[in-house]
Amino acid sequence: MIGAESHTPTKHNTQCQTWCPCVFPGLQMFYSFITFSSKRNAACKPKPDPSSLVFGKQFSDHMLTINWSEKDGWEAPQIKPFQNLSLHPACSALHYSIELFEGMKAFRGVDNHIRLFRPMLNMERMHRSADRSCLPLFDKGELLECIRKLVEVDQEWVPYSQDASLYIRPTFIGTEPSLGVSRAGKAMIFVIVGPVGPYFATGSFNPVSLLADPSFVRAWRGGVGAYKMGGNYGPTISVQNEAVKRGCQQVLWLYGEQEEITEVGTMNLFIYWTNNKGERELVTPPLDGIILPGVTRQSLLDLARTWGEFKVTERTMGMKELLSALDAGRIMEVFGAGTACVVCPVGSLLYKGKTYQIPTMANGPDLAKRFYKELTDIQYGRKPSDWAPLVV
Amino acid sequence: MIGAESHTPTKHNTQCQTWCPCVFPGLQMFYSFITFSSKRNAACKPKPDPSSLVFGKQFSDHMLTINWSEKDGWEAPQIKPFQNLSLHPACSALHYSIELFEGMKAFRGVDNHIRLFRPMLNMERMHRSADRSCLPLFDKGELLECIRKLVEVDQEWVPYSQDASLYIRPTFIGTEPSLGVSRAGKAMIFVIVGPVGPYFATGSFNPVSLLADPSFVRAWRGGVGAYKMGGNYGPTISVQNEAVKRGCQQVLWLYGEQEEITEVGTMNLFIYWTNNKGERELVTPPLDGIILPGVTRQSLLDLARTWGEFKVTERTMGMKELLSALDAGRIMEVFGAGTACVVCPVGSLLYKGKTYQIPTMANGPDLAKRFYKELTDIQYGRKPSDWAPLVV
Repeated sequence: MIGAESHTPTKHNTQCQTWCPCVFPGLQMFYSFITFSSKRNAACKPKPDPSSLVFGKQFSDHMLTINWSEKDGWEAPQIKPFQNLSLHPACSALHYSIELFEGMKAFRGVDNHIRLFRPMLNMERMHRSADRSCLPLFDKGELLECIRKLVEVDQEWVPYSQDASLYIRPTFIGTEPSLGVSRAGKAMIFVIVGPVGPYFATGSFNPVSLLADPSFVRAWRGGVGAYKMGGNYGPTISVQNEAVKRGCQQVLWLYGEQEEITEVGTMNLFIYWTNNKGERELVTPPLDGIILPGVTRQSLLDLARTWGEFKVTERTMGMKELLSALDAGRIMEVFGAGTACVVCPVGSLLYKGKTYQIPTMANGPDLAKRFYKELTDIQYGRKPSDWAPLVV
Repeated sequence: MIGAESHTPTKHNTQCQTWCPCVFPGLQMFYSFITFSSKRNAACKPKPDPSSLVFGKQFSDHMLTINWSEKDGWEAPQIKPFQNLSLHPACSALHYSIELFEGMKAFRGVDNHIRLFRPMLNMERMHRSADRSCLPLFDKGELLECIRKLVEVDQEWVPYSQDASLYIRPTFIGTEPSLGVSRAGKAMIFVIVGPVGPYFATGSFNPVSLLADPSFVRAWRGGVGAYKMGGNYGPTISVQNEAVKRGCQQVLWLYGEQEEITEVGTMNLFIYWTNNKGERELVTPPLDGIILPGVTRQSLLDLARTWGEFKVTERTMGMKELLSALDAGRIMEVFGAGTACVVCPVGSLLYKGKTYQIPTMANGPDLAKRFYKELTDIQYGRKPSDWAPLVV
């Protein structure tokens, strides 16, 4: 599923640098452009200085909502002034976490066009999360077109900066107004957007320190760790606080008796090393049900495989193997990968009371920086790519 | 923690059959009676016929809300007309499942007094869930007094029936209006109540069939299965639907390589058998972090230990041991225990394609019925007990 963009370069029609029907052929399920309901906010807020932005605290003037009920199916999507939601107090999202979300970004490019980044991957994942949550399915292309329209309406909120972007938060909640633990008979997709600042000042990476404690488990086989459901996040907060108490910045999530390395904070994890056959290799844990299938993860794998310069492997790696390779000087770079930072270098690990230094920064980090440059070049339109469809 | 009621019979003052300060000595954190804000609903709804009630679909005229912020702490609790909640669309409960709940009941007794059932156990568990969720802590006695007050205000909603009750749903959500995955700086406790009907017509138990499939895992060691957090419930819905597709009514949740028996649906599980030493024994899985510490579970253990008529053991039991005992004719009764039904007999198990009959009904079920009678006698005031403090 992941990696299945709705069209590939070979099928790409020459108009596709703009948003076009070949990218989003759907439009049957939610609406037609004629019935699209859009109400402009008469009281727009001033835009913040891109250099002062804090993640997720500021929102634009408008939002998208699409209601569904078992009886009537999907209603017409609405773009309307940003406002509070009015929810029944028995709303199933508030009691049983029938809720899921996505994280995406829109970027203002060097050509002043606004681009998304592989948005169909988010729509595909959202669709899988909805299915797992027993929420109604939706047309992925149509939802993406609704999101594009929202970003178009609030385009002035996309920062005029190549260090900042507009964060997009599609959210899908059960709004069933009753307390039985069962499939929600009412639901709502809503999308809010807001400007977010640079994760790193350009070019300078700040490495993070990780707490690796096998007593904390993020997800498990037979569970829902592969889906972007709200219930995977709430329980991590006290563990993250514990990491900070122990002088670390983030959590390295381990799993099982082999203490498999799974994710870091809310990011996927990559290890660039010389393997025990002496080959240079990029390793990331496989999508075995306990790992979130990240869009950035997939993009790094795709890029590295295209380059063909080193081995690229999805496989499990235990703490013992990592520490032994570290001891042997075979680890070059360890970094997280996610929408927020693109890549985030790891500088040290606290494991069973001992701190292990990781030479990510001493090695450049050449590979992490190359990934960062490659993806941001695509996102900000410095390098043409069908990974970055235009919003406007 | 569990089992620690705020007073015991030996300390019990003679006035304690009514709600009294010795039961709820707190009142410092939220409010004093003077500042308690209560607004009557001018448009009360008609009360439904107790025989026609569907669980969780009907609510009373009022609700309780208590807001908290990092800046100002707890605000005065409000009892106000039942109404929708107005929530910021970035509300942390809707994105990261920073949310937890409790399930309690109020019963109208044979003496027309209204009683709760061991409500401090719910307050204790809610407090632990709040702590695990990084939500602000609260005074358990004060919250209970607020709930008592709400039930008093809506006392006409407590069904005039010894087969029905008023279900009470305390809920605690993070209302932080921003998207960072971190401790909520704003939060709200709200409580809604509604009449619920009989789970069984008096005296007649309907046994349920269970799907036992080790590929579905409810909770895991290192996770949050012991807390009543929303994220434990949403993922169960598709599994429950799968059980129904396979002709079963509920899920028997297994865990780990030994296929440990953990819970059934949203209930704790009990097995009454002759153990391999030939002793009559009541077994339930221990509170090892993956089991929800149920109030009914604790009450059945407490009663059985008081009776002293058979062995009472909290220990893990694997599917292999259960099936082998079943084959040897040593299983007498298997039943779930929870607030909804008190006890719920299990009639069969579907495991790896084979249906195993369980002779629960053929054995009465004597023990399950005795538990049911004992608890409902206390709840409906047919038998005096300090497990059932008066609301009014």
